[in-house]
Parts: sequence; structure tokens; C-alpha cells
Amino acid sequence: MEFTAEQIAGLLNGEVEGNANVMVNTLSKIEEGATSSLSFLANLAYEEHLYTTDASIVIINKNLSLKKEIKSTCTLVRVDDAYQSFTKLLEVYNQFRNNKTGIEKQTFIAESVTIGDDIYLGAFAYISDNAVIGNNVKIYPQSFIGENVKIGNNTLIYAGVKIYHDCVIGDNCILHAGAVIGSDGFGFAPNKEGGFDKIPQIGNVIIEDDVEIGPNNCIDRATMGSTIIKKGVKTDNLVHIAHNVVVGENTVLAGQTGISGSSKIGKNCMTGGQVGITGHITIGDNVKIAGQSGVSKDIKDNQILQGSPAFSYPDYMRSYASFKNLPSIVNRLNKLEKK
Amino acid sequence: MEFTAEQIAGLLNGEVEGNANVMVNTLSKIEEGATSSLSFLANLAYEEHLYTTDASIVIINKNLSLKKEIKSTCTLVRVDDAYQSFTKLLEVYNQFRNNKTGIEKQTFIAESVTIGDDIYLGAFAYISDNAVIGNNVKIYPQSFIGENVKIGNNTLIYAGVKIYHDCVIGDNCILHAGAVIGSDGFGFAPNKEGGFDKIPQIGNVIIEDDVEIGPNNCIDRATMGSTIIKKGVKTDNLVHIAHNVVVGENTVLAGQTGISGSSKIGKNCMTGGQVGITGHITIGDNVKIAGQSGVSKDIKDNQILQGSPAFSYPDYMRSYASFKNLPSIVNRLNKLEKK
Amino acid sequence: MEFTAEQIAGLLNGEVEGNANVMVNTLSKIEEGATSSLSFLANLAYEEHLYTTDASIVIINKNLSLKKEIKSTCTLVRVDDAYQSFTKLLEVYNQFRNNKTGIEKQTFIAESVTIGDDIYLGAFAYISDNAVIGNNVKIYPQSFIGENVKIGNNTLIYAGVKIYHDCVIGDNCILHAGAVIGSDGFGFAPNKEGGFDKIPQIGNVIIEDDVEIGPNNCIDRATMGSTIIKKGVKTDNLVHIAHNVVVGENTVLAGQTGISGSSKIGKNCMTGGQVGITGHITIGDNVKIAGQSGVSKDIKDNQILQGSPAFSYPDYMRSYASFKNLPSIVNRLNKLEKK
Repeated sequence: MEFTAEQIAGLLNGEVEGNANVMVNTLSKIEEGATSSLSFLANLAYEEHLYTTDASIVIINKNLSLKKEIKSTCTLVRVDDAYQSFTKLLEVYNQFRNNKTGIEKQTFIAESVTIGDDIYLGAFAYISDNAVIGNNVKIYPQSFIGENVKIGNNTLIYAGVKIYHDCVIGDNCILHAGAVIGSDGFGFAPNKEGGFDKIPQIGNVIIEDDVEIGPNNCIDRATMGSTIIKKGVKTDNLVHIAHNVVVGENTVLAGQTGISGSSKIGKNCMTGGQVGITGHITIGDNVKIAGQSGVSKDIKDNQILQGSPAFSYPDYMRSYASFKNLPSIVNRLNKLEKK
Repeated sequence: MEFTAEQIAGLLNGEVEGNANVMVNTLSKIEEGATSSLSFLANLAYEEHLYTTDASIVIINKNLSLKKEIKSTCTLVRVDDAYQSFTKLLEVYNQFRNNKTGIEKQTFIAESVTIGDDIYLGAFAYISDNAVIGNNVKIYPQSFIGENVKIGNNTLIYAGVKIYHDCVIGDNCILHAGAVIGSDGFGFAPNKEGGFDKIPQIGNVIIEDDVEIGPNNCIDRATMGSTIIKKGVKTDNLVHIAHNVVVGENTVLAGQTGISGSSKIGKNCMTGGQVGITGHITIGDNVKIAGQSGVSKDIKDNQILQGSPAFSYPDYMRSYASFKNLPSIVNRLNKLEKK
Repeated sequence: MEFTAEQIAGLLNGEVEGNANVMVNTLSKIEEGATSSLSFLANLAYEEHLYTTDASIVIINKNLSLKKEIKSTCTLVRVDDAYQSFTKLLEVYNQFRNNKTGIEKQTFIAESVTIGDDIYLGAFAYISDNAVIGNNVKIYPQSFIGENVKIGNNTLIYAGVKIYHDCVIGDNCILHAGAVIGSDGFGFAPNKEGGFDKIPQIGNVIIEDDVEIGPNNCIDRATMGSTIIKKGVKTDNLVHIAHNVVVGENTVLAGQTGISGSSKIGKNCMTGGQVGITGHITIGDNVKIAGQSGVSKDIKDNQILQGSPAFSYPDYMRSYASFKNLPSIVNRLNKLEKK
């Protein structure tokens, strides 16, 4: 895809300063801008790069007055809000990226499947009996859609996602490569022989609208009922969510976070990386949990936590500062005892 | 699948109270029971729900005398033991679920493969040279079975599992989607150029009978010899098991547990989520390790551990209670010193 | 594959002592050696096993004088350096293993793809538009190569790897099963409705030469620019690398390590298992980080760290020793206060 400065100005209601016919085929940061790339200047802390960048086009604000000459190879496109305009371009760019449609030949589609309009279905994707696929859904190669799975409109499923039977995915979701949705909950009952009998896991996973699930995540189905990922939740890479968990609206889980069975997480929470949450607890709304912390009991709204087990973040930091000094604290105690 | 109350009573040797023709097509918890669902009451703590549930059928004990009227939409099936009967139904339900047989068209099966009776092989599955697949094995779509791999009878391999060459999987195992079995151990020797030479990893993984491996687990092959997952082991989501590890019988590893190379874990152990076990150590039988703990040395039988590095669980909790109070402890020390 | 003692001696410039026609078909450790296996003795601590091993062939040094008789079933091959010779055999063995070539029938190859010589492409692999595949590359079944991806010479991609569009993989790399390269960075901007808007992720991942990526790793593409995994890096199972991270040459990341967005890791570093590194920090060269530690700030060269947050390893161990004694320390303080 190549665009001229004139085409970009047209798209953004901007004005060209320089060569209107210069072409770009990629985007760059202004400090790394190379020939044939388009960049932007929104934060004036980066203004110096405007005068040295090799980017072929830079988007800047209409009201910015230049302090020096820019390179002769650089064309400006002036707009009302450079940041917003660049974001708009990013979206256009991504829509071009993900504009695949059609059903490739080497797919498996069970007869009983219901498929919406304008979908993309990549080769080696497998759609099981009674699955219902919405409009404008894109399912990349090698994905597996189990029996009775429902997928809402405009949802994007990358390569190699595996969705077990009976799960429900909402509208406008993104599921990244290798994510597993609806695997069995980890439930076993000790038996007389000293081993374990499997407790059948007959629930499902419900992922509501506007959710993004990271690559190689594992979200287990409920034992009975549903594991629920509510509207607007975002999960990072390698997140583990156990059976019967509920993750509240717009909660964000960073990489390698793990949530044990039946815990309920509130709305607008954030976990740092590698956070662990034990089973059967309830965490309120707007809770923030520092990376590597382990939450082992119910938490009220608006808390900020750290530690394993986790408690108040500022208290943890104070205790940890003393922990670093423990050998000298012990020395002081030794001295006092001698006196 | 729909069943009448009469059919269910027949299956369970039970007696119908109410409309014998009412139909159900799913299972539910009694407190969440909806029309057309079947539920059960075993724990009398939930008895109140019996009188308000919308479930169409509820299984209860023969000797339970009702305290109030139940809803007119609710049919009872009375049995000797409601919990056992419900478990039996779950198993029947799951057998219906997993009753696929036959080899779908778009599979790859090398000529030298040996395949047992009554297997299911989903589309886009790949079976390499000299693999041996037992009877009644189910291999879901997009799974990869490497050269010389042996898979025992009645084993269930979900979508997208990858098993490298020479690995051995026992009878009655379940491998969840995305699990990787037999990837190279992480072994490198420093070379003269400051980088690393790969140490060839020529061993394999042996998974014994009755093992369940969670989704997106990674179990590395041994450098030489075998990484061994013994009979009855269960692993949760995203577990990491390195080369030459041995996990003892009926040991249970919770989500995101990681075990480094050459460590031996005993029988009937349990790890909490995100536990880490260092390399080349031996952990005894019946050891329990709290979530997020890190075990760095040999551990005797029957220990309960917490911390990173881990030590006795009650001692850790006592130390951690003092850790929370460290700032006030330091204050007290300051005061004493002033005196 | 079967080899005689004579063939092996020929390959290694060695001399046979015993039955030159005895055949082996596998490799073993000398202490576990079984009939038809080949073993070696390099470390004299294991010499006793030489006289009892059931291995059919053992490679030993020319200058080793036997202290006892070996078993009559055991043939020796004497060489200048037994360890080096065995390593050479391992490499030959592995080359036999991975000697697949040719393009299997059920693959998807877009028309615009460029493919080098002597490649192997397994069934159900998918190669998207404009991908460029080097010479002697092996792509195992069910892998996904996105649009514009470039893969260097001699690179080995195991089953089910997913590489998103625009990513670049160097020469002599190994990507293990289930690894995801180039998934979206985890970037969201809060919106007026209390939810999050996705920040388009238009960068890529660059993996340089001689890199080995473990199974089910997730390496995110940069928001803009590149996430870079430099020459010689090795990652273990289930490693998470976020957008815009740079991992320096020959750095080694153990299992379940996670690195947050935009952090830069130096050369020749090593992380233990389950290490977490926060975002936007810089870690120097030759830094070693103990398992389960969390690094939260810039780190200079040559440091050894532990803790969460991490500080100097010996200091952490001293503090942790006192932590274990905290209850008795508090007791001593109590006693002093009473006085």
C-alpha cells in the first residue's frame, strides 16, 4: 500500500507543505523515521527530531511554527490535531490489514453450521456441528471452533485459537493466536485407590463484547454454569483463568496473571504481570494489584495491593524497605542486648 | 440431546414425582436452575432453592421429606443417593459429548502408522511415520503426532496438541488443547565465541496411564533417557516441566507451576498456582507447596511449604506476620536505642 | 537407524575393541545403558558403570586403561576425546532426525510467496502473501506464516508455530511448537465510556540469527518499530516478551520469564524461572536474576539480583535469613522492652 502526501491530506482534512506527490508505504516514530515512511509530531518534547527526521511525510499541528528548516526530503501535512489524525491513520491501516474475506478451500465446516455475511475463514480452520458464526467475523487458519459455539459479529480470531464446545464469544472481540477457550476446569475428587476421579466439567465460557484475549491464554469452562469474561476485559499474554471465574467489566490482566477457580474479580481492576489470585475469593472494583503479588482473601473496592500474600501497597513498600535493612536491624538489636 | 423425567428415572433406578414427560436438555446448579434444565439437591444447606428453582427436573434423595410445596413446573426424580446419581448422569452426558469416531477426510496419516479400533481422527490432524495409536483413541483436529510416538488405549487428545517424536502416552490420558509434549530440553554449552552451542536433546517424554495434561502445558523431552509423568498425575493450565523431570504418581500441579530440569517430585504432592521448583532437587511424597512459592533444595516427605525460597508453611506465615509489622518493630527499636 | 561398531569407529576415527558387527539403534547414559544402545564414558567418576553397563557399544578415550573386565556383550570404540566424539554423534543423529525435505500436499502457499531450496513444508502449514522463506528451512505441520514474513536460511519451525504479518526471523533459528511471534502489543487508551480503545500495533518482531524460542512463548510485535530478539538468545518454555522489548545478544531466559513493554535487556544476561521484568527499564550486560525475582528499575552491568522487587542477591539472602528468624527477633525485642 502506497499513499501520496496529497491522499493523506485528503483523508485527514489537512494541508500539504512540500512535495504533494511524495509516497509513503509504512509508519514510523519520528525519531526513527526513514525514507518512504510517515510519522507525526504531537509531543513537543520530540520537536528536535522534526528537523532531522528522514521520514518522507510528517503530520504536525496547524498552529505549530517551525523553529528551523526541515529536511528537503520531508513533506509536512498540517492538521488540527496531529495525534488524533495519526491514530485515525493507524485505524485505516489496520482495516486494510484485516480486510480478508471469503472461505478458503481447505476448511472443515460441519453441515449444521450457521455462518453470517462477509466472513473470512482461513484454510485448515475447523467449524464443528451447530456452531453459529456472526457477520463480518474473521477466523484465521488452523483455528478450532467446537460444537454449539456462538461467535458474535465483527469478532477476529487469529491463527490456531481453540474454542471448546458450547462456549459463547461476543461482538467485536479479538482472540489472539493459540488461546484456548473452554478447556476443562481443574476438578478432581480423591478416590479410594489414592488417585483422583475426574469431575465432569459441563459448563462453558462466556466472553462478552469488546473483549481482547491474549495469545496462548487458557480460560477454563465452568464445572456447571459459566466462566464469564465481561464486556471490555483485556488480557495480555499467557493468562490463566480457571473454572467459574468472573472477570468484571473493563478489567485488565497483565501477562502471566493467574486466577484460580470460582473467584470473582470486579470492574476496572488492573493486575500487574504474574499476579496470582487464589480460588473462591471476591475482589472489588477498581482494585490494582502490583506485579507478582498473590491475593489470598476478599478485597474491597479501590484497594492497591502488593505482596504474597498481598496487603496494602504502601504498607508493603514500607515493610520491604525495612526487610532490606533487616541485617542491620538485627545488629542494632544485638548491640542493645549486650548493653 | 433431550431426555424425559421418565428416561432419567429409568437410567438411575429412580421414581418420578410429577410430570414424567417433562423434557430437559441441559444441567444446572439448583440455585441457577432454568426451564428445561436438570438439577440435583444433595447438600441440605441448599434445600431452600428446591422450593424456588426453575429447573424442570430435580434429583433428590428418596428419604427427603419436603417442607413446602415445590413449583408446579418442577418434577422430582427420587433416588437412593442424589449426588452419586447426578455424577453418573454427568458421566453419561460426557460420553455422549465425546462419542466421535471415524477418520475425517483431510487428515495426514503416514503409511507406516499403526492405528487401533474405534478411533476418532479429526481433520488437519497429522500422524507421522511409525506412530502407534491404540484403541478408542480420540485425536481432535490440528493435532500433531510425531514419529514413533505411541499412544495408549482410550486416550483423548484435544485440538492442536503437539507431540514430538519418540514420546509415549499411556492409557486413559487426556491432553488438553495446545499442550506441547517432547519439545527440546533447555540445554546449551557456552562456546568460545561467547555464545551457546545447543546440546542435542535425544531423550523423550513418557506419560503413564490416567494422566491429565492441561492446555498449553509444555513438557520437555529428556536430554537422554526420559522425562516421566507418572500414573494419575494431573496438571492445570500453562504448566512448565523441563527435561529429565520425574513427577510422581497422583501428584497435582496447579496452574502456571514450573519445574526446572532433572528435579524429581514425589507421589501425592500438590503445588499451588505459580509455584517454581529449581533444578536437580528431590521432593518427597505428600509434599504441599503454597502458591507462588519457590523450592530451592531437597524436601522430605509430608512437608508443607511457603516462601521464595520456601520453608515450613506455618513458620513462613509467622515470619510474614512480623514482616507486615516491620515498620513498627523498627520504631520500637528506635525508641529503645534513644533510652 | 542402526549402526555397527565398525561404522561408528569409522565416523569417529576410532578403534574397535570387541565385536565390530554389534549393532546399536539408540543412545543412552552409561548408567542406564541397555542392549542395542550406544553410550560413552568421559567423566571418570562414572568409570564403575563401564564394567557393568548393558550398553552394546561404549565410546572411551584411547588412553584409558581398564581396571577390570567389561561385560562380554560390550564393545568399546576408543577415540581421542570421548565427550567430543559423543557430541558429534548426537549431531549426526539429530541431522538424521530433521532431514525432512519436500512440500507435502495439503499445504496452503499463497501465489506471491518466495521459497528457497531444499525446504520442508509439512501438511496444513499456511504461508501467507509475500512471505519469503530461505534455503533449507523446515516448517512443520500446522504452522502459520503471516503476510510479508521473512524467514532466513536453515531455520527450523516446529508444529503449530504462529508468526503474524511483517515479522522477520533470522538464519539458524529454532522456534518450538506453539510459539506465537508478533501478536499485538498490549496497548490500550482509556476512553470516555470508562472502557479502553485499542492502540493499533503496527510494528513487528525481529528475531536475529541463532536464536532458539521455546514452546508456547509469546513475543508481541512493537506498537511502532520492532521488538528485537538479538543474535544467540535462547528462551525456555512459556516465556512472555511484550511489545518493543529488546533482548540482548546471547541472553538466556528461563521458563515462564516475563518482560513487560519497552524494556531493554543487555547481552549475556540470565534469568531464572518465573522472573518478571517491569516495563520501560534498562538492564545492563551480564546481569543474573534469581528465579521468581521481579526487577522494577534500571540495573547496571554485572549485577546478581533476587527479590520482588529485586536487589543484590547476597543482600537478599542475608535479609531473607533474618526474615526466617523474625518471630524470634520480635521476641528478643519484647524482652528488651520489658527490661
